[in-house]
Amino acid sequence: MQRSIYLDHAATTKVDERVIQKMLPYFSDIYGNANSQHFYGRKAQKALDEARDQIAQIIGANPSEVYFTSGGTEADNWAVCGLARANSTKGKHIITTKIEHAAIFGACKTLEKEGYEVTYVDVNEDGIVDLAKLESAIRQDTVLITCMYANNEIGTIQPIERIVEIAKKHKVIFFTDAVQAIPVMNINVKQVGVDAMAFSSHKFNGPKGVGVLYLRNGVKISNIISGGHQERTRRGGTSNVAGAVGMAEALRLNRLTLEQDVEYIRSLRDLFVSRVQNEIPFAKYNGHPQLRVPGNADFSFEFIEGESILFSLDLEGIAVSSGSACSSGSLEPSHVLLAIGVEEAVAHGSIRFSFGKENTVEEVNYVVDKLKQIVERLRMMSPLYKVESKTTKC
Amino acid sequence: MQRSIYLDHAATTKVDERVIQKMLPYFSDIYGNANSQHFYGRKAQKALDEARDQIAQIIGANPSEVYFTSGGTEADNWAVCGLARANSTKGKHIITTKIEHAAIFGACKTLEKEGYEVTYVDVNEDGIVDLAKLESAIRQDTVLITCMYANNEIGTIQPIERIVEIAKKHKVIFFTDAVQAIPVMNINVKQVGVDAMAFSSHKFNGPKGVGVLYLRNGVKISNIISGGHQERTRRGGTSNVAGAVGMAEALRLNRLTLEQDVEYIRSLRDLFVSRVQNEIPFAKYNGHPQLRVPGNADFSFEFIEGESILFSLDLEGIAVSSGSACSSGSLEPSHVLLAIGVEEAVAHGSIRFSFGKENTVEEVNYVVDKLKQIVERLRMMSPLYKVESKTTKC
Repeated sequence: MQRSIYLDHAATTKVDERVIQKMLPYFSDIYGNANSQHFYGRKAQKALDEARDQIAQIIGANPSEVYFTSGGTEADNWAVCGLARANSTKGKHIITTKIEHAAIFGACKTLEKEGYEVTYVDVNEDGIVDLAKLESAIRQDTVLITCMYANNEIGTIQPIERIVEIAKKHKVIFFTDAVQAIPVMNINVKQVGVDAMAFSSHKFNGPKGVGVLYLRNGVKISNIISGGHQERTRRGGTSNVAGAVGMAEALRLNRLTLEQDVEYIRSLRDLFVSRVQNEIPFAKYNGHPQLRVPGNADFSFEFIEGESILFSLDLEGIAVSSGSACSSGSLEPSHVLLAIGVEEAVAHGSIRFSFGKENTVEEVNYVVDKLKQIVERLRMMSPLYKVESKTTKC
Repeated sequence: MQRSIYLDHAATTKVDERVIQKMLPYFSDIYGNANSQHFYGRKAQKALDEARDQIAQIIGANPSEVYFTSGGTEADNWAVCGLARANSTKGKHIITTKIEHAAIFGACKTLEKEGYEVTYVDVNEDGIVDLAKLESAIRQDTVLITCMYANNEIGTIQPIERIVEIAKKHKVIFFTDAVQAIPVMNINVKQVGVDAMAFSSHKFNGPKGVGVLYLRNGVKISNIISGGHQERTRRGGTSNVAGAVGMAEALRLNRLTLEQDVEYIRSLRDLFVSRVQNEIPFAKYNGHPQLRVPGNADFSFEFIEGESILFSLDLEGIAVSSGSACSSGSLEPSHVLLAIGVEEAVAHGSIRFSFGKENTVEEVNYVVDKLKQIVERLRMMSPLYKVESKTTKC
């Protein structure tokens, strides 16, 4: 029987059955428009308020600082464009890093067309942002620093608290894309001190199509979607009540077992990494060895194409990613791998394995066994590998 | 037993049980990221493609002209801001009407801050846009005309095909917000000839949080949400597959019985209007007597407050709207009613009743009976009414 092993939790996750059950009444029973003043509307509004309160409480925010969006990408775009535009009297310079998600780069490109200047700060070979370069990039007209909490491809976790210190010292607004971090880190926005933070429901077993922008009270932002009075007039559009309820429930459930889940996922990942490193030659482990999200293992397998590995694994019923799912369809090598100094040819042979709590030790071992065979078979067909093997043998 | 009668279908509708059943597998089974290249992703992509094809076929578009958004408001904002910005080399003048939805006004305000000039064209006392004024407002630098298909408060249907003719004659891009029209009109975009059109799933028994922008191939638009390669690189963000599938199914089901549903809804509305006009004095029927969506009845009850009527009906288990649900929380009188010449004092006494296929004749009669009592009771407490009654008696 064909196996079906999902190792792409960084791309998206299955909606938890309890989350679905919690959402269902908001489709067919409590279906009012949360802005309506009658009982159908009030019930919907109450559910929306409760979802907002719950998320706020979990991330240590005030409910008035939690804004629902249609997902992480909208929240990222809104934060970057909205913060830059609303505070542009100070200047039109933004600082970010070379390894951000496409949603941040997309927003930066939009701003560049509007006359903003963006500095893309280097990261080191583990993917950690260069703090000295970041600080020295700050100018009088710097209006925003935006740096992801954890990278979506190589999993590296940034020293966000130190970046916040730098931003505060220079009185620059700081935003973090925490889409990959929130599912595995119990982040308290007040303790970390960020001005704004984005995250997405579907990365932690919630529904797709809903996300949150945390925005500290007092920080000015421009809208990117304007309409009615929803979200304190900052994000128009009929509230997706079922989505918000689902997101809140998913985050609540996630936090109930976060510590043991993280420990378990890390153990699976570590087993996988250790076996690959011991059993598959010319496999470069990308990203920081320790400072990375627990479920991420990103490898470059030299002499072969990541896509070939991906398709071969797919034939065996194993789902992984070559680079970010968000960039699928692109033939460019990963900008993240290039930024950490992986050679272009090697970058092309990269695969992201991202583990979740549904995975098992047995699955990990099965995947490594299959991966070994696949890498070996593909290398046997690779002219580059033949040369390398001969050289090695000599 | 407390009744529960929903007469606010223009605000939102219940998700059809068949739509929910169609969506469910995309939460927990076919949960892949549609951008992922493995089988989980391909299944999701296939579902997304099918949803897009289905919607395209129903509105007479090419699938490549259908873009999923998070709803009508995003689609409206995207169209107005995106079309204006992408074509701004031609100029920075936009034409719209005085009775658009808040989502259009919100986008117009955003553009005004960017230096665009917006002409808000008058409508007549029935809410029909003044075509002569619209045409004479066109200038060399007019880059976009945006006019709603049907109004959300008074239901008036605009002569869109004539506006399209005018726009084409002057080579100006034309966009229509068809959020209220699509649920009750079988619009074919090629026949009508619009360049772009927005609509929202939750107005026709689909889920909230998903909408569509139809954009004719060849028309330039700027993104408002950028990220990955989703939606032909024009709208970033992990695709809300369940939402798209639900929207497509809801539209398919809507079209299966559209004619009989519209006829039935119209008969309920006409019964309601006829009884109110015959049995409740000083009740002004707002909007065009014929050219209006079948489920809409908007009345101004003189001498009393719409909110008082709304709350009194609510106590009886009857859900209606005072103005647009999107503007709830605002104490301003409806801009639509002011635009059609309703006096401010009278505008404050307005209620929108919007009927759906779930309503019954018995419900309509029950509501009129209750409404009569409520209006009479509130008027007895109204000093304005006492004066009027005495005058009338004299």
